[in-house]
Amino acid sequence: MKSFRRELWFEVPGRRALLNITPQVESALAESGVREGLVLVNAMHITASVFINDDESGLHADFETWLEGLAPHAPSTRYRHNRTGEDNADAHLKRQVMGREVVVAITAGRLDFGPWEQIFYGEFDGGRRKRVLVKIIGE
Amino acid sequence: MKSFRRELWFEVPGRRALLNITPQVESALAESGVREGLVLVNAMHITASVFINDDESGLHADFETWLEGLAPHAPSTRYRHNRTGEDNADAHLKRQVMGREVVVAITAGRLDFGPWEQIFYGEFDGGRRKRVLVKIIGE
Amino acid sequence: MKSFRRELWFEVPGRRALLNITPQVESALAESGVREGLVLVNAMHITASVFINDDESGLHADFETWLEGLAPHAPSTRYRHNRTGEDNADAHLKRQVMGREVVVAITAGRLDFGPWEQIFYGEFDGGRRKRVLVKIIGE
Repeated sequence: MKSFRRELWFEVPGRRALLNITPQVESALAESGVREGLVLVNAMHITASVFINDDESGLHADFETWLEGLAPHAPSTRYRHNRTGEDNADAHLKRQVMGREVVVAITAGRLDFGPWEQIFYGEFDGGRRKRVLVKIIGE
Repeated sequence: MKSFRRELWFEVPGRRALLNITPQVESALAESGVREGLVLVNAMHITASVFINDDESGLHADFETWLEGLAPHAPSTRYRHNRTGEDNADAHLKRQVMGREVVVAITAGRLDFGPWEQIFYGEFDGGRRKRVLVKIIGE
Repeated sequence: MKSFRRELWFEVPGRRALLNITPQVESALAESGVREGLVLVNAMHITASVFINDDESGLHADFETWLEGLAPHAPSTRYRHNRTGEDNADAHLKRQVMGREVVVAITAGRLDFGPWEQIFYGEFDGGRRKRVLVKIIGE
């Protein structure tokens, strides 16, 4: 069994953004030499997500509006967590809706994807350097 | 390490449905010959889910009502994504709540499940042929 | 390829609680002897979750309030599932938001975690003995 590990680093200037990281995951896969196996891609921070959906800007605007409705950022005082001096409780909740990780099949050396699947990093508390882990196992 | 791949195809006549696909996953597992490992089961479409919950029709009706409350289908114009000519933005959101994939342990050649766990395909934008991927790795 | 399996048992006295189970998962990993691979940690019950977030009591209170807003327990009659004699339909829904499972990379014999990642068992229908599965594969 082979294993391969890579960290991807991001710094989003604003509070929230969705970044298509499929090319970076494909590049790690190519370097790993794994032909059959699984790749785990996960946020290493608990106020960010990795998820698979569509690379369409209108949908990304819908995600923003929808998540803000489900777990509003303001007022900061609505959340107990923010009494610790943080203002990111909403980011912890949004991350649960969108998920921490994806596991993708590797077949014949490629990400085994349907026609529209793309991997995204979802940042909900940006303005600092944060990481995604890519871990590949297989043969 | 062995690996095994199967696509499961579905065509739901209406817009939404929940289908118990546990037998098809068990059948792929039996064919794979894997005794110890992991199986990944994921929707290959970004308006559908694979998830594990209860096979109880009342609960399925509750999921339908609940998801429609969290991410209503109508009016179609409430979503930016639908300006592209689609009417399925709600399906992209519902899929995030229910999840893209499950990973299940394989022990002694069986799905290592608790007493009520069943695997479902959640269709949120039906009326066409769509796929689920079953990928098995192990020994 | 090595594989290792352990069940973790819990009995939460009340209806809901969040328990940090990271030490138990680390202990299983140490016993497995796996240095490179993946660990799957999943609830074996469909009214409970395993998820990764912050071990901060204010945030846990926020999760409780937020989930109760998204999928209220009462009145029990609002859910079709509860006509079967159950009163836990809300727990099935809350579990979908929080997720069934996590998959964590194993690198150099350790859980490959970011600075604040901790694994939690989320109980949404307690008062009885319930299980989490830890399945480790690798080398």
